[in-house]
Amino acid sequence: MRSPWQHPARIVPFAFLALIAIGTALMMLPAARAEPGHAPFVTALFTAASAVCVAGMAVVDTPGYWSTFGHVLLTVLTQIGGFGIVALATLLSLIVSRRLGLRGRMLAQAESAGLTGGNTARVLIRVALVMLVAESILTVVLTLRFWLTYDYSFGRALWEAFFHAVQAFNNAGFALYSDSLVRFVTDPWICVTLALGVMAGSIGFPVLFELAREWRTTRSWSTHTFLTVTGSLLLTAVGFVVFLVFEWRNPGTLGPLNTAGKVLAAFTQDVMTRSGGFNSVDLGRLNSETIAVTNGLMFIGGGSASTAGGIKLTTFMLLGYVIWAEIRGEPDVVIRKRRIAEETQRQAVTVALMGVALVATGTVALDALTEDVPFDRALFEVTSAFATVGLSTGITSSLPPSAQVVLVVLMYVGRVGTIAVGTAIALNTRRRHYRYPEERPLVG
Amino acid sequence: MRSPWQHPARIVPFAFLALIAIGTALMMLPAARAEPGHAPFVTALFTAASAVCVAGMAVVDTPGYWSTFGHVLLTVLTQIGGFGIVALATLLSLIVSRRLGLRGRMLAQAESAGLTGGNTARVLIRVALVMLVAESILTVVLTLRFWLTYDYSFGRALWEAFFHAVQAFNNAGFALYSDSLVRFVTDPWICVTLALGVMAGSIGFPVLFELAREWRTTRSWSTHTFLTVTGSLLLTAVGFVVFLVFEWRNPGTLGPLNTAGKVLAAFTQDVMTRSGGFNSVDLGRLNSETIAVTNGLMFIGGGSASTAGGIKLTTFMLLGYVIWAEIRGEPDVVIRKRRIAEETQRQAVTVALMGVALVATGTVALDALTEDVPFDRALFEVTSAFATVGLSTGITSSLPPSAQVVLVVLMYVGRVGTIAVGTAIALNTRRRHYRYPEERPLVG
Ligand SMILES: [K+]
Ligand SMILES: [K+]
Repeated sequence: MRSPWQHPARIVPFAFLALIAIGTALMMLPAARAEPGHAPFVTALFTAASAVCVAGMAVVDTPGYWSTFGHVLLTVLTQIGGFGIVALATLLSLIVSRRLGLRGRMLAQAESAGLTGGNTARVLIRVALVMLVAESILTVVLTLRFWLTYDYSFGRALWEAFFHAVQAFNNAGFALYSDSLVRFVTDPWICVTLALGVMAGSIGFPVLFELAREWRTTRSWSTHTFLTVTGSLLLTAVGFVVFLVFEWRNPGTLGPLNTAGKVLAAFTQDVMTRSGGFNSVDLGRLNSETIAVTNGLMFIGGGSASTAGGIKLTTFMLLGYVIWAEIRGEPDVVIRKRRIAEETQRQAVTVALMGVALVATGTVALDALTEDVPFDRALFEVTSAFATVGLSTGITSSLPPSAQVVLVVLMYVGRVGTIAVGTAIALNTRRRHYRYPEERPLVG
Repeated sequence: MRSPWQHPARIVPFAFLALIAIGTALMMLPAARAEPGHAPFVTALFTAASAVCVAGMAVVDTPGYWSTFGHVLLTVLTQIGGFGIVALATLLSLIVSRRLGLRGRMLAQAESAGLTGGNTARVLIRVALVMLVAESILTVVLTLRFWLTYDYSFGRALWEAFFHAVQAFNNAGFALYSDSLVRFVTDPWICVTLALGVMAGSIGFPVLFELAREWRTTRSWSTHTFLTVTGSLLLTAVGFVVFLVFEWRNPGTLGPLNTAGKVLAAFTQDVMTRSGGFNSVDLGRLNSETIAVTNGLMFIGGGSASTAGGIKLTTFMLLGYVIWAEIRGEPDVVIRKRRIAEETQRQAVTVALMGVALVATGTVALDALTEDVPFDRALFEVTSAFATVGLSTGITSSLPPSAQVVLVVLMYVGRVGTIAVGTAIALNTRRRHYRYPEERPLVG
């Protein structure tokens, strides 16, 4: 038996567990709660895990249930969690960069996709600086809007702006309003600012760094950046059109808004769906066809090594190219005159299918643990938790504790677990030095 | 522009369309209907397509709506469709055996996986013989049971036995009883006989032929046969346990039965789910967790080159091995000391993901075309149509014609279209004689 502490990379998932444990203990302090008494264990666990995994999913009314101290805790846990996830990707890339295996190879690629030339400290400082600058810009814009238009006191405007700026850039999505952003549905200053913050956080640091260097010379972009940017544009466009068309007349969502309001609300909800987790329309009243598309967008998620969750844009885009090559009968998968390694294709398949298996298992578990939760709502909650989106049709708070624990496990596994398990196994890999004869079973 | 008639293989999908068209015209004859007047176009189209694609999905009450002539038509269309599907796989394997591309490669493998040494006619005769023998055995057992136990006249017993024998072995699933097999839920003679017929038809001819030769020497089995048999046993076991455990106390399904009855009903429903399409419990009253598992089983389906649908057992099993190899960091996917070709892995991925895309698109379309169909019921209908299972929670008949046409398209594409499109494209393939430099974008 080897100790899990033998290799530094193995500590990371335990560090996240420890962070969630500390967060749970802190959220159980009576000072964290608005009312007298302390929060129940599962409520505190769910909230802490949701913050650390930047899911932003809530089992209680965030503004009413937690005290200001509780809100400060949420901010700190979200910020540490979000930074930790990016730091994790970076550190692991340096530790296991030359080893093979699921995440080893993947993280080695993170480096070649943008994080070149830096040592650990330098990269972490750059990540921290980008976060600081982005959150500061968001805070300034939101503060001015809250202070000047909504007549908040300057102190309150600053605090609420900062809180939501951290939630937005880290793609968490806790809100200090019981209706999330529904009250701001027609306010472009609030909605567009937060949407841009979410987009910046969800594109991924390798891509951000590469875009900062060469955003004008699209031809020199790495395949990773090309896939992330085109995937993001494609899905944003699809989501926007779907929300606008399917919800145009829905009296519970876009129906009552004028045309400009419909466009703004569709854009905001579209951006928030692939990981942001805020909502400016009532998701419980979406049409079932919109819900279905929303599930797909949540499952795909954002960019690699970002604060977004899901199977990631590159995974989705790569699989599209794989299918396209296959039905055209091309021997190689080629993107912009670059051949995609067979190993990378297999990684993409593995990530996507493990995601499908997790969501399927979670949905069956949630259905089995509850009496009256319809299948579609269970699927939505589970997909949202797995992809750490945090959106809900409104059932999270009424789930029994056992079902809430299922969602906690999904958030952790969706965010930390796949990286951790993959790396741990990769570090143990035995190599084969011979190959067996090839066989081609019939498929399909 | 090349003509689609240039290559004989391209005729096949048109032949199936022609068969459906002829079937639709015949089902619209007043003589096919029990009541005066003729069936509406969409009803006739749906029923003919459902029979030809061996889906067995019904928009009307099969015994009450159609005349005996209509039932004979159903039998003929099912038999021609089922035989045609197997004949298609065999013929195409001979035509395109040395070409590359999605289905070209696949069908070449069908040959190596069991259909060796025969010319077209010999293989077709063997297939027809197996069908004839299997359906005869089923007919004899069912006739005796209907005649001796249920006091049918001998003529009626023989006709109903033959009708259901054809439906079972071809994995179609039309029934001459409005409740399908619910009235026989505790009759092992009826349920087990039909279940064995469905299993025999769904395992696939390459595997049947190989098992007939060497069923005792499991070590000499091809990888294809190994994956099909183990996959079938695995999924049958999982489905059986799920049905039994999740439905044990459900008053709408297994609840009222005694223990032996519960075991029989769970086994029957389990076997029917991966393509048979009969049901001996009311599917509209299944728990939502059972529905979720049922969706998964339907989607996977049966063996390749069989009368079953879905993405097929080998595809599912292969993907499992791919994931297992990936998380273990193995460079090759190895099954019983045979390395699986990279091309075969890519085919499996393509087949599975095209299935996911079809089901997702179909579900969104069905939801968009209806007002009050819940998402989970839409997903169930669409999965059942795509995988030509034919099970329903009972909403098919109340869908608007546009939504029924969506299901027709899914049945056709799920059954004939993927083979046809894949082959057609494969026959057009241009080869690349140079390779681009390799790149490894970040995934997950
Ligand atoms: K989130
Ligand atoms: K069927």
